Amino acid sequence: MQKEDLIATQTRISPYIHRTPILTSRLLNEIAGADLYFKCENFQRMGAFKMRGAMNAVLQLSEEQKARGVVTHSSGNFAQALALAAQSVGAPAYIVMPENAPQVKKEAVKGYSGQIIECASTPIAREEVAAQVEKETGAFFIHPSNDEAVILGQGTAALELLEDQPDLAYIFSPVGGGGLIAGTALAAHFYGKNCKVIGGEPFEADDAYRSLQSGKIESNTSTNTVADGLRTQLGDINFPIIRQYVDRIIRVEETEITQALRLIWERMKIIVEPSSAVALAALLREKETFACQKIGVILSGGNIDLTRLPF
Amino acid sequence: MQKEDLIATQTRISPYIHRTPILTSRLLNEIAGADLYFKCENFQRMGAFKMRGAMNAVLQLSEEQKARGVVTHSSGNFAQALALAAQSVGAPAYIVMPENAPQVKKEAVKGYSGQIIECASTPIAREEVAAQVEKETGAFFIHPSNDEAVILGQGTAALELLEDQPDLAYIFSPVGGGGLIAGTALAAHFYGKNCKVIGGEPFEADDAYRSLQSGKIESNTSTNTVADGLRTQLGDINFPIIRQYVDRIIRVEETEITQALRLIWERMKIIVEPSSAVALAALLREKETFACQKIGVILSGGNIDLTRLPF
Repeated sequence: MQKEDLIATQTRISPYIHRTPILTSRLLNEIAGADLYFKCENFQRMGAFKMRGAMNAVLQLSEEQKARGVVTHSSGNFAQALALAAQSVGAPAYIVMPENAPQVKKEAVKGYSGQIIECASTPIAREEVAAQVEKETGAFFIHPSNDEAVILGQGTAALELLEDQPDLAYIFSPVGGGGLIAGTALAAHFYGKNCKVIGGEPFEADDAYRSLQSGKIESNTSTNTVADGLRTQLGDINFPIIRQYVDRIIRVEETEITQALRLIWERMKIIVEPSSAVALAALLREKETFACQKIGVILSGGNIDLTRLPF
Repeated sequence: MQKEDLIATQTRISPYIHRTPILTSRLLNEIAGADLYFKCENFQRMGAFKMRGAMNAVLQLSEEQKARGVVTHSSGNFAQALALAAQSVGAPAYIVMPENAPQVKKEAVKGYSGQIIECASTPIAREEVAAQVEKETGAFFIHPSNDEAVILGQGTAALELLEDQPDLAYIFSPVGGGGLIAGTALAAHFYGKNCKVIGGEPFEADDAYRSLQSGKIESNTSTNTVADGLRTQLGDINFPIIRQYVDRIIRVEETEITQALRLIWERMKIIVEPSSAVALAALLREKETFACQKIGVILSGGNIDLTRLPF
């Protein structure tokens, strides 16, 4: 993936996505002891950065592929993102979701005209069912994070951030399936001025941290974290990019995540989901290291059940 | 109060306040059937528009007055606003608060170096105690809403809104003590192009609606509303302005307030307090009347106890 691919991606998707605002907070700067620039993907269409990658993938389908539709497996934001992206180009979307996925998420997918296919709540089951749907419908499979078009799409958030704030020393991003941080690392590599990318990851789902240590993709044995968007694991397309371009990953405790979440809600008056708070939590955990620097923080999304807050 | 006074106010306070962003939402436009421009005073310093008026009042004190300090009575955002404004110019602030005011609000006032004087939880008690503090300390009394400098300060939010969106047909504002809507009406009168100002008020605290009907200041007999910022009542300085320049007031039910609140949180991903949702609730209640118009909505503040949400 080259610099030109990222620019082409931005041009392709910009009519379909929001250029999200960058917010600053005097109080959070004081707390962090640094200058923070928050890229607010919680204000993105359908409420998360996932819309960027989904849109980029869908817009590159042939007319024939669009007619047959797209399929993915996701219980989270990518389910909604792909449904909305497909709807935007008039393509059917088949979304494989675990049968125990929250009703509110299923309703959101239906609201964007997505067709839900339920499966058992295991990684293997969802891959199998998705493969079956692909076979039966001829729909094009798009992985939520381990896909070139998706990675490039997600990278446009950091690209926009660097266009507005070219001299960032660091960009912090949460690490889940790896699509966002891989795209962010590409954007920082091609467009930053020696801008380093740091990942934030829960101790409770630290597959990326361990993968960087061992040099091969490691799995999560459990994923008992409030950051529900980060329970997924790296893939063979994004891992090499992460290995090459991500400076390091900082792991955080669950209490650090909820504290950072509450800081963002109370001080910035914006709604972000727990996964987004992981990036800030990572920064605050080692704030001495980053003192007085100019730092971008990607707030990845804002989809959270308001009746079940973690505080 | 003249056009020049409003401009002078803006010049005076701008170094001390945030020029807050104006947000739009495709989904809320669809729901309202109109083009909405939300002036986000929830992002203002200390979390509400009250900072504008407090700052304007404090900045006009003489050096001698500053040395003696300022006093007000408030259990809400003005308490914090005056404490922070006074701190900004190095003046002591005496804040008379009901003894049963939430601990979190008292802590916030203390955090801005305000000195709290507790009183019984009645309107008469707080006025008496404030008068006593004024007498004992020589501090300058600043009313939270019935004060020319405060009204002009609050009007700068609508002034900024009209600078960015000059051709608004309406601006919706919540009505509590009357300072915000009076300032908004002045700004719309002086700077709008036939821009009408509409107030939103809870049925449960509809003193302003009834005052406009009767032509004299009416009192609330009860104030059983979730919109805690709107339980106060009009004063003799802001009421004549409201009578002259506010087009009308639309009253809303409590369920309409919580529904509008939830819409803003879920769809716009921002945190506003219930009082702010009253303006949107008023618009939605009569949305047929305002269909297809370009409408400003003032989101007055974002200070809410996250552990005690109304939904």
